[in-house]
Amino acid sequence: MRPSGRQPDEMRTIRLEPGFAKYAEGSCMARFGETHVLCAATVEDRVPGWMRDTGRGWVTAEYGMLPRSTAERTNREAARGGQSGRTQEIQRLIGRSLRAVTDLQAMGEMQVRVDCDVIQADGGTRTASVTGAFVALHLAFQRCVDIGLLKAVPLTDQVAAVSCGLYKDTAVLDLDYAEDSTAQADANFVLTGQGGIVEVQGTAEDRPFAAQQFDQLMALANKGVRELCEFQRQALGLEPA
Amino acid sequence: MRPSGRQPDEMRTIRLEPGFAKYAEGSCMARFGETHVLCAATVEDRVPGWMRDTGRGWVTAEYGMLPRSTAERTNREAARGGQSGRTQEIQRLIGRSLRAVTDLQAMGEMQVRVDCDVIQADGGTRTASVTGAFVALHLAFQRCVDIGLLKAVPLTDQVAAVSCGLYKDTAVLDLDYAEDSTAQADANFVLTGQGGIVEVQGTAEDRPFAAQQFDQLMALANKGVRELCEFQRQALGLEPA
Amino acid sequence: MRPSGRQPDEMRTIRLEPGFAKYAEGSCMARFGETHVLCAATVEDRVPGWMRDTGRGWVTAEYGMLPRSTAERTNREAARGGQSGRTQEIQRLIGRSLRAVTDLQAMGEMQVRVDCDVIQADGGTRTASVTGAFVALHLAFQRCVDIGLLKAVPLTDQVAAVSCGLYKDTAVLDLDYAEDSTAQADANFVLTGQGGIVEVQGTAEDRPFAAQQFDQLMALANKGVRELCEFQRQALGLEPA
Amino acid sequence: MRPSGRQPDEMRTIRLEPGFAKYAEGSCMARFGETHVLCAATVEDRVPGWMRDTGRGWVTAEYGMLPRSTAERTNREAARGGQSGRTQEIQRLIGRSLRAVTDLQAMGEMQVRVDCDVIQADGGTRTASVTGAFVALHLAFQRCVDIGLLKAVPLTDQVAAVSCGLYKDTAVLDLDYAEDSTAQADANFVLTGQGGIVEVQGTAEDRPFAAQQFDQLMALANKGVRELCEFQRQALGLEPA
Amino acid sequence: MRPSGRQPDEMRTIRLEPGFAKYAEGSCMARFGETHVLCAATVEDRVPGWMRDTGRGWVTAEYGMLPRSTAERTNREAARGGQSGRTQEIQRLIGRSLRAVTDLQAMGEMQVRVDCDVIQADGGTRTASVTGAFVALHLAFQRCVDIGLLKAVPLTDQVAAVSCGLYKDTAVLDLDYAEDSTAQADANFVLTGQGGIVEVQGTAEDRPFAAQQFDQLMALANKGVRELCEFQRQALGLEPA
Amino acid sequence: MRPSGRQPDEMRTIRLEPGFAKYAEGSCMARFGETHVLCAATVEDRVPGWMRDTGRGWVTAEYGMLPRSTAERTNREAARGGQSGRTQEIQRLIGRSLRAVTDLQAMGEMQVRVDCDVIQADGGTRTASVTGAFVALHLAFQRCVDIGLLKAVPLTDQVAAVSCGLYKDTAVLDLDYAEDSTAQADANFVLTGQGGIVEVQGTAEDRPFAAQQFDQLMALANKGVRELCEFQRQALGLEPA
Repeated sequence: MRPSGRQPDEMRTIRLEPGFAKYAEGSCMARFGETHVLCAATVEDRVPGWMRDTGRGWVTAEYGMLPRSTAERTNREAARGGQSGRTQEIQRLIGRSLRAVTDLQAMGEMQVRVDCDVIQADGGTRTASVTGAFVALHLAFQRCVDIGLLKAVPLTDQVAAVSCGLYKDTAVLDLDYAEDSTAQADANFVLTGQGGIVEVQGTAEDRPFAAQQFDQLMALANKGVRELCEFQRQALGLEPA
Repeated sequence: MRPSGRQPDEMRTIRLEPGFAKYAEGSCMARFGETHVLCAATVEDRVPGWMRDTGRGWVTAEYGMLPRSTAERTNREAARGGQSGRTQEIQRLIGRSLRAVTDLQAMGEMQVRVDCDVIQADGGTRTASVTGAFVALHLAFQRCVDIGLLKAVPLTDQVAAVSCGLYKDTAVLDLDYAEDSTAQADANFVLTGQGGIVEVQGTAEDRPFAAQQFDQLMALANKGVRELCEFQRQALGLEPA
Repeated sequence: MRPSGRQPDEMRTIRLEPGFAKYAEGSCMARFGETHVLCAATVEDRVPGWMRDTGRGWVTAEYGMLPRSTAERTNREAARGGQSGRTQEIQRLIGRSLRAVTDLQAMGEMQVRVDCDVIQADGGTRTASVTGAFVALHLAFQRCVDIGLLKAVPLTDQVAAVSCGLYKDTAVLDLDYAEDSTAQADANFVLTGQGGIVEVQGTAEDRPFAAQQFDQLMALANKGVRELCEFQRQALGLEPA
Repeated sequence: MRPSGRQPDEMRTIRLEPGFAKYAEGSCMARFGETHVLCAATVEDRVPGWMRDTGRGWVTAEYGMLPRSTAERTNREAARGGQSGRTQEIQRLIGRSLRAVTDLQAMGEMQVRVDCDVIQADGGTRTASVTGAFVALHLAFQRCVDIGLLKAVPLTDQVAAVSCGLYKDTAVLDLDYAEDSTAQADANFVLTGQGGIVEVQGTAEDRPFAAQQFDQLMALANKGVRELCEFQRQALGLEPA
Repeated sequence: MRPSGRQPDEMRTIRLEPGFAKYAEGSCMARFGETHVLCAATVEDRVPGWMRDTGRGWVTAEYGMLPRSTAERTNREAARGGQSGRTQEIQRLIGRSLRAVTDLQAMGEMQVRVDCDVIQADGGTRTASVTGAFVALHLAFQRCVDIGLLKAVPLTDQVAAVSCGLYKDTAVLDLDYAEDSTAQADANFVLTGQGGIVEVQGTAEDRPFAAQQFDQLMALANKGVRELCEFQRQALGLEPA
Repeated sequence: MRPSGRQPDEMRTIRLEPGFAKYAEGSCMARFGETHVLCAATVEDRVPGWMRDTGRGWVTAEYGMLPRSTAERTNREAARGGQSGRTQEIQRLIGRSLRAVTDLQAMGEMQVRVDCDVIQADGGTRTASVTGAFVALHLAFQRCVDIGLLKAVPLTDQVAAVSCGLYKDTAVLDLDYAEDSTAQADANFVLTGQGGIVEVQGTAEDRPFAAQQFDQLMALANKGVRELCEFQRQALGLEPA
């Protein structure tokens, strides 16, 4: 039934490749099927002005798409003179998601900035970004531990994200572009390794949907994020949960 | 327990004042307690370029805050040279919410633009905007019917919005600023008169929350939106549902 | 003869409502007939960089219009990416007018910023802005006195503004939009309570006008500003002059 | 008493050099003492969009300063990313002044754009701009007549401008920078050859001034503009008035 | 002597990977050692406005760097609100280089836009861009031939680019970042397969250099471009030259 | 053969007028035939942030064109909201050229900014800018010496620039606009008084050109720059070289 032939609760092929960006303190190429996002974390010794002298750190994110990552070329935001509302919405989501599992107090006054750049887009770029950005962030913190800047990785849990949607009246997991562009509803779930909710964004595209359908989407998301967390652990060389 | 002394499931005092803006085709001052948003609908005979010759209409929204609507002055976006990510996120949400209950085909090729300007802000400006914008939109469509531009109001349902949150471990309805700024989690629900979900946005501020807590928030939202829809019907001079 | 039926030397109904903006240090809703401008003053403890360590204060203003304050919708300046020349011209005028009656030395190093936002526009928004901004500024200074920041209100006089014009060859006072858009000439006068000239801006719209006509406009302005100053004194709870 | 040793009613040395810009349809270097403004008129066969198919023409102006035209370098507006409020205010003034003496109907659908660029600034750049721009505009129209585009120069009168001010309690004509920066009040007058008022802008810098003082400034302006009109006639090869 | 241990006339390891971007009409990942540039060509059926109805086509390019392609993070241009002078200079160079070997008449009225995005930067990103962009352009034209839009690939020659420089008083080929940042002079050469000069840009970094030294750089460039053209032919599946 | 009737190796009439800008620390009007560029140097006591506390100085340049310096009016960059890529490319070139002959160490922590504004354009504006900017810079340094800020003029050599090109298959010196717009190739050479190469930029406009032709262009440039350096020495009151 799905264009890709997947089962309703079946994720795309996931690959999380740590260390992809040679110069970044931490990085990960996150591949959800044909969606590829390069996540690169930069450690900076300065926090934003409004945080100075608070003793706490900050984690933020930026997001972009290569113009020809998409089937139809997308205009370059730098050439248009600024970031679109969609871009800003996504990078704010990524930043909030990462901060939800970061102990900003334990970080001390430093900042990590994670750049999520979409090399190829086939739907779900924001959820791949969150999932890969967590790996990049973890690696950057590990690097800080290795060189003595931090005593321990200041992360309290894992965080990953996946989209679900109603496609031809069926709840399906991990929408690709063909599904996303015709779904009746779609929702992005950012969940922790413990299953806690960090962020939920559900939107009816065609007509309103029912609370019961929303529950089905959330159940799928739980399954998907559990799998993604396992991929993250492998990429980071951690024991299975 | 709540700073305002309200019960957990108690909305603020709601007032929807139709026709507030003298020159607009439809308008509504939406007051949720001390949050006041002026919603004004403008009917335009041109649709955006990408919709030309499709025979369908479009509904969109813009959002702004007066600089001193807030306790601390907020910089004027026009003076800073553009709209912030938050502003764009909110106005996209309002537009999607209105379109979810509009029959764009029945509208024909025209556009309605609803300006939502926050005169005073005490939390929940985006939900007051959606709720008031629906009234303004309905009035503008009614005006089009009155002068023969449309045969009937092309709305398929009502739409309204409310925020809920976890405040001191309790699920509460319709957060004011004092609650919003310290809530453990908050969620905005855009629902239809029939109880369908148009948009759900939940965010953990402090630590992740559980699916069960999310269900409590949604139950409160259902109660709140039912009440808001009744206020909308009164403002529009319609029979109670 | 006038569209509104007013006498040539008759102002519109004036209402100056102090304290309209709940959160501002001083505020005033200034209504000149159907023109409504919300003026809100913010006290800041920092002066602009070029004034640091001079021991003197500063008063400045910003101006904006709600998009649907006008009969035809005006594009939102924040969405267009900046303030128009007209907007900047007006806010510079308001700032200069307020500073003309402020003892910047007595203020000490602090700044008051007055936001003038047009809620409804029927001509004369800049003169209503100056008139209401003075009330907001006075209230903000009074607040500073009440909490011990200042010893006395550092204002040396009142300031108010009114427009006059040549309409169908007759000099008339306080133009509304119907007159303003067809006047042969119009002039804005900013005068003090003592009758001193702070700012005069006269423009021929259709064809040049004579010095004698200009004198008629100034005489009307003197009458109008005397009345406005009385309204200001009432709004501020001061004795009649 | 004046820094330059001039009498109170004495203009600076005026030179209007027609044809200064080799490529423009009409041009004039306007020198008011050490203030030098290059005015260049461009004839375009398109009017702005909102004037299409009205059968009427348009005249507009742009204004700029070379960064080192001033004693202290002024930042380049192109590098800062836009025109300041002051610049926009001035170029709007120049455009209105020129249109006040242009028969837009007789022009037909074409546009003349006059660029006024300050090469050297010693006060009074806007009045020199208006005065020189009129010469450039006249020459451009004459060129159109010469090549058969127009039957006659569509100008109904001359227009010129001069500043006056209160300097050490005395009314003086044609302020230079040393006077302008310390004047108690200054006013710019745009007047026609017939003595009609096109634009008056008076500002109290220090403290409000009296109506009687304003009358003195206007009398000086009349004298100054009469002299400037004579210089214009010489530059254009016209008979003395 | 060179940090990389290369001979003065030795290029880095070159890899040109055609078809890297799944969705583009033509693409190439160009790797010059650790410098990796993804070049993606988009065929558009519209030419810029100033070329309409000329019967000729256009080829243009855009350039960007991922923020963490560099050892120190570079700010994202979209977030800063525009492209830097360096970026614009580079993309203009790429466009000119491609047009130098394109028969714009034979193309007909269509446009190819080549996006060159630096994934990893170790010096020489503009020369890698030109070299990879040619492959992407050729593949896009070939695609047009395959689907019948063009009769033949409208390219008159190959074009490739390489940098040379004076490093420790020796002329060396294909500078990497370690060399580039300390070179006494560097020059970028864009040459055709026939050895013709398309573009030469030489800059003394430290002190002026002699014409004789410039001749040495050009000789190295000729050797380098000959090798690059061979790699291009392999990537395109063409016979060796 | 040349439109101007000049010999292939003949420069236009050169005039370098020192002290043209009354207020600048150093200035020069550089005239290459009908191309006139006003160069004005400003001495500032602050270096850019990234140079603070290095003990070294900085020299930079800005470039602009009056809108009607050209035969067809060019849009004003300040009105368009920013500098074009071409403008930025040129001002970076001028800055690099000046720094190549400046002893930044000997300057100490100060900055000289040279504004090059094109009053009239007939081709070769960037080379006239470099040539005139050197004179302005030298005069500004001399002023610093005169008032005791510097012990000696911190310039190590002269620098000047000229364009050459292939016009109707012949190598010609100092292209004017008529030649520039139809040349097969053109190149800009920035050379020192000693004949060293500071910058070379050659571009094929029509078809690639040969290395031998490039050598002819460079020989012409050497001749031209020798002549320009003599004009510079005259303008500066220095002995012939």
